[in-house]
Amino acid sequence: MSDQLSRTFAALADPTRRAMLARLSQGRANVSDLAKPFLKKMSLPAVTKHLKVLEKAGLVTKTRDAQWRPCQLNGRGLKRAADWMEEYRRFWEESFDRLEEYLKTVAPKPENPVTARSTPKAKGKKRGRKD
Amino acid sequence: MSDQLSRTFAALADPTRRAMLARLSQGRANVSDLAKPFLKKMSLPAVTKHLKVLEKAGLVTKTRDAQWRPCQLNGRGLKRAADWMEEYRRFWEESFDRLEEYLKTVAPKPENPVTARSTPKAKGKKRGRKD
Repeated sequence: MSDQLSRTFAALADPTRRAMLARLSQGRANVSDLAKPFLKKMSLPAVTKHLKVLEKAGLVTKTRDAQWRPCQLNGRGLKRAADWMEEYRRFWEESFDRLEEYLKTVAPKPENPVTARSTPKAKGKKRGRKD
Repeated sequence: MSDQLSRTFAALADPTRRAMLARLSQGRANVSDLAKPFLKKMSLPAVTKHLKVLEKAGLVTKTRDAQWRPCQLNGRGLKRAADWMEEYRRFWEESFDRLEEYLKTVAPKPENPVTARSTPKAKGKKRGRKD
């Protein structure tokens, strides 16, 4: 588990760390501001530990702004994971297509073939969904 | 760490498990075939354990084919992780743009502006790389 890609995925495997990334996606934040929403559930050292995991995984970097050292999201770490994922794109798209195929088999057949032909193929979207 | 997305990322945080997924991306395989390349480094129970982690994470499913129960890659599990990642796309694209900006500042300026204009924009690729 020593490679950087494994470290990145391991860092993402925690809801607190993903919540920290979500916060940083809004903009840079210093450690105390970043920690605030989590301090009801955990101690400051626990939050700092999570942050260290994110830093080691290359998902967060500390920048310098005068005496202030805010944290910011590091796109490169995310890119590493996204690039790996991209190799498998056809599989997650296939699983979606299979669902679409299934929905076609269970959906009632249109009575007017002209209307049916003029309907564009709704890739990955159910038309007229009730929700 | 009990949510499914965390389980998925945790399952991806291991090179052996990622290698198993790479093998399954070539097609379905039964456990013994899937295990073969790893048996030099680890025992069969260790391989089976990794496979169980992938199954629990929703990344691999066992199908049924007569008496045979081959494993196959489950696109839906990957989609879950990819969807999460997608929310952060602008960050990894930004980090790429920043690199491109930097490369522009360090690259020698072309002497002939006409030649410079006719050169296509090399997005994310260094031209004339020596390797």
